Amino acid sequence: MTHFADRLAAAIRAKGNAVCAGLDPRWESLPQEIRVRHGDDTLTAVAGAFEEFCCRVLEVVAPLVPVVKPQSAFFEACGPAGMDALQRVLRKAHHLQLLTILDGKRNDIASTATAYADAAFAGTTIGSRLHPVWEADALTVNPYLGRDAVEPFLQSARKAQAGVFVLVRTSNPGAGQFQDLLVASGKDAPQPLYQHVAQAVASWSRENVGQCGFGDVGAVVGATYPAELTQLRQMLPEVVFLVPGFGAQGGTATDVLPAFRRDGLGAVVNSSRGITFPFKPDERDWESKVEAATKATIAALAGNR
Amino acid sequence: MTHFADRLAAAIRAKGNAVCAGLDPRWESLPQEIRVRHGDDTLTAVAGAFEEFCCRVLEVVAPLVPVVKPQSAFFEACGPAGMDALQRVLRKAHHLQLLTILDGKRNDIASTATAYADAAFAGTTIGSRLHPVWEADALTVNPYLGRDAVEPFLQSARKAQAGVFVLVRTSNPGAGQFQDLLVASGKDAPQPLYQHVAQAVASWSRENVGQCGFGDVGAVVGATYPAELTQLRQMLPEVVFLVPGFGAQGGTATDVLPAFRRDGLGAVVNSSRGITFPFKPDERDWESKVEAATKATIAALAGNR
Repeated sequence: MTHFADRLAAAIRAKGNAVCAGLDPRWESLPQEIRVRHGDDTLTAVAGAFEEFCCRVLEVVAPLVPVVKPQSAFFEACGPAGMDALQRVLRKAHHLQLLTILDGKRNDIASTATAYADAAFAGTTIGSRLHPVWEADALTVNPYLGRDAVEPFLQSARKAQAGVFVLVRTSNPGAGQFQDLLVASGKDAPQPLYQHVAQAVASWSRENVGQCGFGDVGAVVGATYPAELTQLRQMLPEVVFLVPGFGAQGGTATDVLPAFRRDGLGAVVNSSRGITFPFKPDERDWESKVEAATKATIAALAGNR
Repeated sequence: MTHFADRLAAAIRAKGNAVCAGLDPRWESLPQEIRVRHGDDTLTAVAGAFEEFCCRVLEVVAPLVPVVKPQSAFFEACGPAGMDALQRVLRKAHHLQLLTILDGKRNDIASTATAYADAAFAGTTIGSRLHPVWEADALTVNPYLGRDAVEPFLQSARKAQAGVFVLVRTSNPGAGQFQDLLVASGKDAPQPLYQHVAQAVASWSRENVGQCGFGDVGAVVGATYPAELTQLRQMLPEVVFLVPGFGAQGGTATDVLPAFRRDGLGAVVNSSRGITFPFKPDERDWESKVEAATKATIAALAGNR
């Protein structure tokens, strides 16, 4: 197994871009043909539609992008059948040699965090048996509980050579309510909370750095806050950024440029709706529209280098 | 339907205590008879063991306590089959007229948060159909993303007359790393971050107050921080506290006393291992030990009033 950051760097180099295709299946946006075939009688039927849609998107994007990011909330919305679909979508992505970031924003303390983390990465150990669950290459994690609650995610990720992306500066309009609170720090000028979290992420990341120079603990930093993104890139030279908020949420190619190191590594830029839903439900040949939208996203980001 | 806080108050009055039985199924702690019957060959088998154990615990505690709190991480550790078990455990709790707090510590932005919240409470709407998922009475939520990310949880909870417990001061040893950071606030003395979160929770809670005087947005405050608990009770008179960390984590009956209003309302004190695992796996008649441990927990808390 290879260090997560090195696998990510290799995938970005191989595909020639750092686009992450976000899989946020929403019933009302699915192609009509898929909705009709599965129906909406039960959540099992809906989960089947989500799975078919995501797997067909994966086939389209696999030759083009290095990473995909399934959003666990939309699968959880279908209950146990949705989690079944999530598992099959993650496996399909692996078979297509895509890296996977499971977007669960998980957080808890001690052995509870370990339960989430083992499920995400190496698998759940029962007695002497190891049972794989999600087998993701990375998981998003919320830092509010502090280091000892993030630690089990790091330990479990490191066993599987996986990565953890810690929320630092989220992409939503109200992100600043707590993240921008100015923290008094003795003689120095006060710093916003998100910078304190960023410094913790930097120290966690430095514990396990790959050959590419990046650690296995990344930071989620929204494209919707370009000034903060620029500042954080300077503060955290060894930290990979997962950048949501591009496209539908308003972040532009210019906004995300500062997330990258000069060699084009150091960030993955996620687009969900922009890549997966560039069509109306009743449009035919939706897969070619997904392909065109993926290529357009790649080109928009490349044009800025 | 009745306001969440009023349903909680009625349940606490009916049972004569404010104990929450935490359901954290762990394979290594399960009764040997259950482990042998189900086996550990597959996660479906393990999930079946978790379900049987939790459902039998529910039968024991239902006449005694008002609330139970399944920890979603331990069910997610069994993958889709675990989520199936979680759903049946939640349904069983409802049939036994127990209130349920789903401990998922969920968080995300906008419509993604809505997907988690609808699954937790009113159900997932697909087209014109409403599909129930977890049907919990309350969900734990992480506040790091700010008001606009908490809002979808409040909206969905209010449609179902359910409750939201926001993490304010968690029970883990390292909780203070970020939660205790001192936030500069103009002319006033700096306040720790958790108090800023607490004030936000108070304002959200005041938006929808029940007849008992408490709102539908509660706060998670660990029993392991009695000074903070005392202070927060004074700051947040209308907020119900969910108090983890009692028992196995070190919180005592004296520590949790300040969480309550004088009439005995205003808090639920969770005990997981202390109630559900007071036996060794090979001990017989483990259910009578769960019953005795539940009664002992209730008595310990009552003795302090």
